[in-house]
Amino acid sequence: MVIQGIAAAPGIVIGRAVVKGSEEIRYERRTIGEEQRAAEVERFQRSIQEAHQELELIKEKTRKDIGEKEAAIFEAHQMFLQDPDFISAIEAKIASEGLNAEAAVEDVRDSFVVLFESMDNEYMRERAADLRDVSQRVLRKLLGISEQLDTSLDGPIVLVVHDLTPSDTAQLDRDKVKGFLTNIGGRTSHSAIMARTMEIPAVVGLSAITEQVQTGDTVIVDGLEGKVFIQPDETVIRTYEEKQKAYAEQKEMWARLVKEATKTKDGKRVELAANIGNPQDAVQALQNGAEAIGLFRTEFLYMGKAQFPTEEEQFEAYKAAAQAMGEKPVVIRTLDIGGDKELSYLEMPKELNPFLGYRAIRLCLDRPELFKTQLRALLRASAYGGIKIMYPMIATLRELRRANQLLDEVKTDLRNNHIPFNENLEVGIMIEVPAAAMIADQLAKEVDFFSIGTNDLIQYTMAADRMNEQVSYLYDPFHPAVLRLIRQVIKAAHQEGKWVGMCGEMAGEELAVPILLGLGLDEFSMSATSILRTRHLLKQLDASEMVAVAEQALALESGEDIRAYIQEHVISKL
Amino acid sequence: MVIQGIAAAPGIVIGRAVVKGSEEIRYERRTIGEEQRAAEVERFQRSIQEAHQELELIKEKTRKDIGEKEAAIFEAHQMFLQDPDFISAIEAKIASEGLNAEAAVEDVRDSFVVLFESMDNEYMRERAADLRDVSQRVLRKLLGISEQLDTSLDGPIVLVVHDLTPSDTAQLDRDKVKGFLTNIGGRTSHSAIMARTMEIPAVVGLSAITEQVQTGDTVIVDGLEGKVFIQPDETVIRTYEEKQKAYAEQKEMWARLVKEATKTKDGKRVELAANIGNPQDAVQALQNGAEAIGLFRTEFLYMGKAQFPTEEEQFEAYKAAAQAMGEKPVVIRTLDIGGDKELSYLEMPKELNPFLGYRAIRLCLDRPELFKTQLRALLRASAYGGIKIMYPMIATLRELRRANQLLDEVKTDLRNNHIPFNENLEVGIMIEVPAAAMIADQLAKEVDFFSIGTNDLIQYTMAADRMNEQVSYLYDPFHPAVLRLIRQVIKAAHQEGKWVGMCGEMAGEELAVPILLGLGLDEFSMSATSILRTRHLLKQLDASEMVAVAEQALALESGEDIRAYIQEHVISKL
Repeated sequence: MVIQGIAAAPGIVIGRAVVKGSEEIRYERRTIGEEQRAAEVERFQRSIQEAHQELELIKEKTRKDIGEKEAAIFEAHQMFLQDPDFISAIEAKIASEGLNAEAAVEDVRDSFVVLFESMDNEYMRERAADLRDVSQRVLRKLLGISEQLDTSLDGPIVLVVHDLTPSDTAQLDRDKVKGFLTNIGGRTSHSAIMARTMEIPAVVGLSAITEQVQTGDTVIVDGLEGKVFIQPDETVIRTYEEKQKAYAEQKEMWARLVKEATKTKDGKRVELAANIGNPQDAVQALQNGAEAIGLFRTEFLYMGKAQFPTEEEQFEAYKAAAQAMGEKPVVIRTLDIGGDKELSYLEMPKELNPFLGYRAIRLCLDRPELFKTQLRALLRASAYGGIKIMYPMIATLRELRRANQLLDEVKTDLRNNHIPFNENLEVGIMIEVPAAAMIADQLAKEVDFFSIGTNDLIQYTMAADRMNEQVSYLYDPFHPAVLRLIRQVIKAAHQEGKWVGMCGEMAGEELAVPILLGLGLDEFSMSATSILRTRHLLKQLDASEMVAVAEQALALESGEDIRAYIQEHVISKL
Repeated sequence: MVIQGIAAAPGIVIGRAVVKGSEEIRYERRTIGEEQRAAEVERFQRSIQEAHQELELIKEKTRKDIGEKEAAIFEAHQMFLQDPDFISAIEAKIASEGLNAEAAVEDVRDSFVVLFESMDNEYMRERAADLRDVSQRVLRKLLGISEQLDTSLDGPIVLVVHDLTPSDTAQLDRDKVKGFLTNIGGRTSHSAIMARTMEIPAVVGLSAITEQVQTGDTVIVDGLEGKVFIQPDETVIRTYEEKQKAYAEQKEMWARLVKEATKTKDGKRVELAANIGNPQDAVQALQNGAEAIGLFRTEFLYMGKAQFPTEEEQFEAYKAAAQAMGEKPVVIRTLDIGGDKELSYLEMPKELNPFLGYRAIRLCLDRPELFKTQLRALLRASAYGGIKIMYPMIATLRELRRANQLLDEVKTDLRNNHIPFNENLEVGIMIEVPAAAMIADQLAKEVDFFSIGTNDLIQYTMAADRMNEQVSYLYDPFHPAVLRLIRQVIKAAHQEGKWVGMCGEMAGEELAVPILLGLGLDEFSMSATSILRTRHLLKQLDASEMVAVAEQALALESGEDIRAYIQEHVISKL
């Protein structure tokens, strides 16, 4: 049987399935006599302690294996275990109502979850999911159930789950688990992003794969085409062994490009950079041949915390990234919170359309103390490497000037205090609001560079929320309107002698690269794991030919036509 | 004392204040003996009947005086009074708990309101406001309180309210009430729109005007500048009597322009059209000198109903509008539901960013039966006048072609059944998605006209929800990015020999008109009450001079600069 899903992380695995159902936790709800209740409260408190310790281990392992931001999720779990409201509500249920600890945990969890979910905002819904995850852990402790997966099967294991929770990810035995499959999720879901980060082939969005596969079944995961084969016959297995080999050879060929500079067939130099979420990611970026960091998102410093990060914390993180990259450029984006990203310690207005609301630079300019702390940390770190600063969501010249004015204030202050920073630090902006693209000629005079943020630029240009499935047909990087805006931005920047990068998903898309090269894009920033593939592609493209190809493509009438044109006239001829 | 608010409807009134506080409804909460409960339930039922009858009268009066859409609000109120859940919950409170009717109504109202408001969507919050309004009416009936305002004071009356509810508006004694002031609201709030429709000078957003003024105080309402004077001295009164006279003369001069064609000083013809919300509005549009209907919103047919309107209902409404306008053009926009507009009988997905979601043409193309019913009604009505069809929210050529394909299917069917329609009917699109503006050259080849919808175009271009106060500084019709997109759209249309209108608020703004004229806009569509003022302005402008003025303006760096430039170089010189 073959099932089509969504290709989430590339590669091919042939292995044995281990299916993880949603664990059935069974216990009896009962009433406890008065004299036993103190002991039951103690039993509950022990389970809390055990869960807390276990989370500490998971957190450390995650920080080491995966990253700071992912580890922060478990810190949030720990915070629930220390939340006096949560704990005392459970203890009260045991002590005064005489409920057993398991039932008390479930009852209190349910009332909190209802509360969180009724708030009906993305952030609180995530907190509800966290609370479910952590309560499950406490219940397992109370019942003495282990959460370890059975990985005693021989050979590579393919994990089959409804959805990969952070706890699952953290505890994955990476020596054994070589692929995974999920019922839900899309290319940008948590599961998919984790899979690409860990370089584990994965297919997601398979609807009912946990029902269709049984532990022990032989499965083939084709993370290139998004296909899954269950109990395939010998012919299929042989075909896929061939494909696996071919893909491994291709990867090896790409790997030889790690140290190479990126040059097109006709010798044009472009820069291939990585998007990263925390300083540790820089190592992986280098291993994948990144020539720069094109986008360092600073949100990880702010999320999953109890308060704003200090200047010192930020300084250390920015410095670490800069040092890890040696002298290579590191473009750091200032805080891009709001929209769908919230902070527990920052009261945000409830908005009807958060993507069209109070976010990123809008919020930072409204709260200069907050912004200046980040700018100060960035400037101080700039003494240690190739840091460049980038402002997100600029829509007007006035916003850019105001941001630069605050930056100047911080610089003056640092100079007065003889604190070193890079006096030649480059400052650029994201082009992600259509208005900015339309006045790119004016903005170009006052920045050192642009970086086109296609994820947002597309959704605003098309007036289509990229998370909304009902209008996903409109979210198209190849729509002529989007490509024309990009052309206009690049032209305006070059007119002023400034360079232009791109840090949206689009920069790493095989069909987009020829067009972007033809339009004159200087820097392509993408997930680290796409860099070598893209370098290989760029080596085969003739930059001057692509100029004409791009012009041809932009005259076409739809995204489909443009993709077909590039496929036929460029990709299929390589 | 002078207070600055927001000018909501033009004109000047000097009169006496009547302050309407939120009515204090006082009663005792008490328990009723078993034997009295049946009588109490009956008393409640009587109050429901009385409230229902009163609403019937208000509804009819509103339909006659104001319009169909406003009347629909009271139909919604009546529906609450017939809602079995609502009614039986109250009766149960009385019958089984023995609460008196007043307390039972308040308790049940509160629990419903909490429920509606927790749903946290614009539509349900409005339902909560309706429920409050209608419950208040029932309480008044139970307590025998009249809701009539005391308008026994001599001379013109200025109504001072927290916010103008639909009930207030409907019952306004228009012979006496000559102005009004509110604590809350902006230029596009319900109160402000009603004031402009009824041509009653108004200032809104005055924060605490209901506290600062007392019934009987003399007040001056300056609806031109948004100022309010409380107990002004003789000098101020005399000054404002002068202003009042000058404004009346100006209005009289404008009134003489009702039958005149719109021509600029150098003889260029442009079309001044009205935006309307229902067929009855056409009369007022003609009285105000409209040469066309530039935007007929069809949502009124769909809202405040229990199910979709039939083809016949729609046909009658479109035909009525077309006939009212004689042979003049009537541009009818197909259904623009979704975003912030919902229908009670149409299940819509819950969206994180409804403005970037499933709305207007997106929804119509997804539900062709619904769309074709409207198209059929429109085509049939086109036999009776100057109807043109306009699709909202077009973002791609494919959407336009699909809509036209459905239109062709309906045409074929009508032809086969020998049902007449205008074979030369013009079909156009709204340009309100930035993508459409960017591919205007491609779209222009396949339409008869464009109408630029600035309200949405601005919010998408700036990535700023126009309802969100935190980012309202970005919602600027004069931002160079917006003006450049408009220029591009007009140029692209003219290249193909097609005409371009504008139906956003911007088309009637004094500072925008010179620029739009200079960019070559062919049709300006606005609220009926702005038409004569704009005709007067256009008569004084030299179209060929404005070409250069617009070019100059578009080279400037910000909305503020552009407004100042037009003020200085055009308006102040008239």
